[in-house]
Amino acid sequence: MSLEEFFEPESMAVVGASKTVGKVGNTVLKNLEEKFNGKIYPVNPKYDEINGLECYESVENIEEVPDNVVIAVPAKIANKVVKQCVELEVPTITMLTSGYEEIGERGEELQEELEGYLEDSSTRMIGPNCLGIWDGHSGIDSMFLPGYKIEEPSKGGIALISQSGAVGSAVLDRAASEGVGISKFVSYGNQLDVSETELIEYLEKDENTDAVAVYMEGAKDGRNFLEKTREISKEMPVVVLKAGKTEKGSEAAESHTGSLAGNYRVYRGAFSQAGVVEAEKNEELIDYAKTLAKLEKPGGNRVAVVTNGGGFGVLSTDSIEKTSLELAEFSEETTEKLEESMKDYGNVSNPLDLIGDATPEDYKKALDVISEAEEVDMILVISLMQTEQMGSEFVDILEDIKNNSDKPVVGSTLGGDYTELHKTYLEEAGIPMFSYPEEAVKSLEKLFRYHEWKDKRS
Amino acid sequence: MSLEEFFEPESMAVVGASKTVGKVGNTVLKNLEEKFNGKIYPVNPKYDEINGLECYESVENIEEVPDNVVIAVPAKIANKVVKQCVELEVPTITMLTSGYEEIGERGEELQEELEGYLEDSSTRMIGPNCLGIWDGHSGIDSMFLPGYKIEEPSKGGIALISQSGAVGSAVLDRAASEGVGISKFVSYGNQLDVSETELIEYLEKDENTDAVAVYMEGAKDGRNFLEKTREISKEMPVVVLKAGKTEKGSEAAESHTGSLAGNYRVYRGAFSQAGVVEAEKNEELIDYAKTLAKLEKPGGNRVAVVTNGGGFGVLSTDSIEKTSLELAEFSEETTEKLEESMKDYGNVSNPLDLIGDATPEDYKKALDVISEAEEVDMILVISLMQTEQMGSEFVDILEDIKNNSDKPVVGSTLGGDYTELHKTYLEEAGIPMFSYPEEAVKSLEKLFRYHEWKDKRS
Repeated sequence: MSLEEFFEPESMAVVGASKTVGKVGNTVLKNLEEKFNGKIYPVNPKYDEINGLECYESVENIEEVPDNVVIAVPAKIANKVVKQCVELEVPTITMLTSGYEEIGERGEELQEELEGYLEDSSTRMIGPNCLGIWDGHSGIDSMFLPGYKIEEPSKGGIALISQSGAVGSAVLDRAASEGVGISKFVSYGNQLDVSETELIEYLEKDENTDAVAVYMEGAKDGRNFLEKTREISKEMPVVVLKAGKTEKGSEAAESHTGSLAGNYRVYRGAFSQAGVVEAEKNEELIDYAKTLAKLEKPGGNRVAVVTNGGGFGVLSTDSIEKTSLELAEFSEETTEKLEESMKDYGNVSNPLDLIGDATPEDYKKALDVISEAEEVDMILVISLMQTEQMGSEFVDILEDIKNNSDKPVVGSTLGGDYTELHKTYLEEAGIPMFSYPEEAVKSLEKLFRYHEWKDKRS
Repeated sequence: MSLEEFFEPESMAVVGASKTVGKVGNTVLKNLEEKFNGKIYPVNPKYDEINGLECYESVENIEEVPDNVVIAVPAKIANKVVKQCVELEVPTITMLTSGYEEIGERGEELQEELEGYLEDSSTRMIGPNCLGIWDGHSGIDSMFLPGYKIEEPSKGGIALISQSGAVGSAVLDRAASEGVGISKFVSYGNQLDVSETELIEYLEKDENTDAVAVYMEGAKDGRNFLEKTREISKEMPVVVLKAGKTEKGSEAAESHTGSLAGNYRVYRGAFSQAGVVEAEKNEELIDYAKTLAKLEKPGGNRVAVVTNGGGFGVLSTDSIEKTSLELAEFSEETTEKLEESMKDYGNVSNPLDLIGDATPEDYKKALDVISEAEEVDMILVISLMQTEQMGSEFVDILEDIKNNSDKPVVGSTLGGDYTELHKTYLEEAGIPMFSYPEEAVKSLEKLFRYHEWKDKRS
């Protein structure tokens, strides 16, 4: 069965829909009413209507079989609803309810019961113990987080799927606020039925998705995950943040999602073989995913750095030296051209320090030369936006450079509101942006290494 | 000579003051007029007045000797001004002008000339090639960055000094936007006269400063730096981000500030002996400085983690396991008390997962128990602020816990605007805040290790 009805249903029911602000079924219904264009059926025997929508006593009373049923009632009742849905041949269930295997023995029985209902049925389930689904294209938002507390992402190429609803939604919120475009978000919880692997397979075929970012504690079926991602990685980058790496972390994972986090060394080796890009830290998950989603394969590992702050040049040099990347050595031709373009701007070297009084136009002149230089494979542009000379025209200039160059371009800029605003503009213009040069450099290395792996495999 | 007149002058002159928006001397004058309560003397032979202030032809024409002269004219003229200032026995000069040893041979001669003037004089100089000084207490802002592009920090206990004006001002701007309180900022540039070591010595005696954060490429006098910081570290934490760690990074540093970045291994060993807290990465500089400035010595290395998102519990467990810290093991007494306070909230363990529907009040109940637990030395509170149940009252509750506990408390919360707002409130309430649990854990480790070093030395 395809997973399509999770993401592109024509009709949705919300079981546990509520008029009480703060209840899960109230928030989900509000979010759907605001964004979803299909038919919405609130289900709750207590009400005849909610927010002007007719409310149904049970799923069975709805005049059609909804494509997707969101369940937000306590576990014991939820199980009964699932049984009904299976009998009605509801295609997909998004099961927000928690209180299953993640709480230990008490919940395991209930989860087994659920499993029994779904077995041999055509009904597919995401969850239980999940936070819902967000799809900016189809207007699905079954997350039970109020709209004013989490930012709506812009549409873009990154699909984010997460075993932890909390980590997933926090990462999603941060990405949204930084202008990182998202195609889909899935909190997949206990993956009783639909596994992370099946989601990744589905996303590989999704035309809106260019890369998948995964927060994972333990794979549902490690062997299957690796076999599938080995193939998928040839087509689309899969970035994984694996939690539960240490013994105690693994124990914590077991009590959290009930998953066996397994031996991290085994995971790590397997990730590397399967072309899975590993994020070692939380923040790297989106850093790597956006770089791999947005940028093309670099011609090699040589990086040019352009900056208006010498200190950032030094920091990025240190960072590059710690990776398998290299600072490009400017050819005589490039050096001459740069000297011409820079006039009395000091010495031409890489990192190229345009000095604190550089204007966006000075960046343009230098980048026009560098983006044509054969000895350069990737470009890191660092900008201190706080100077008198810098301003919003820098965004257009950098976007232009990016569009007219076949080399991957990333940017790095650090500061408060004024800088963050421009960082977001640049991100939205298609340039992966970072606060610190080191993050940019590590992301470029992942880009280089991913394509190196891919070339060997295809 | 004391450095007091740099930070608490009663009168200041701006040489190169200008009416032209965008010129250094225009921005500096504007910033001073807005914030500085003492006498301000613009100096520029082209004008009779600027912004309603009488403008002087030269420093010599001012009716008194200003306590501090900010110089923002090109190098050749700047040297003449310095000569005049020395003859007038001006106590302090903040030399923004660049074009000295950092640009190589051409500038070295000019710098030597400057050195000659200052030798045997009573005049002290910060710079050249620096971005200026900020002091929120005295209202000094001789930085030539326009106010709308960089945020004004709140007053607080961290002094930030930086060899790179760009790195320093970007870090300052970010810290300000995150609610981190700053006592002083000094961009010290080429340190022709006043060295980073002398600044740190001065700051140790500054009653507004609780910790110093330093961005450094190469120390002016490495041996002196280490001898002095070894003593200073017993009284006040010194956090250093050393750039130019690699061979190429060191070359880049030489062409940037003209400083010899030296052998990093030597630095590293010496830092550790001197009790200097090393930030390996840019973002760690303020992370560590604020943690060390705000928090008292922990009783030991055992951390309790409280969260409403299990995934963050797993990530923080992994992080703790990678450090010399330990997850606290809750005693029977603590466990019983927590079980009582949590009702049917699942299992009591550390990390303590209050689950997604936890209210601020639930945090309070749990933290009241944990902050009394003998087996806990430090507390990490992780909060997903995006849930229905969380809200601004969480800030008061956490501030209360912090104020009534003798254990260091840090927080971690990740998200967009709503979350960032609450993160800033919490930071301003005196709780070091982080986006990712790993950053919080690493900062707690530095706190623990710093006090361990200090105990051995005193």
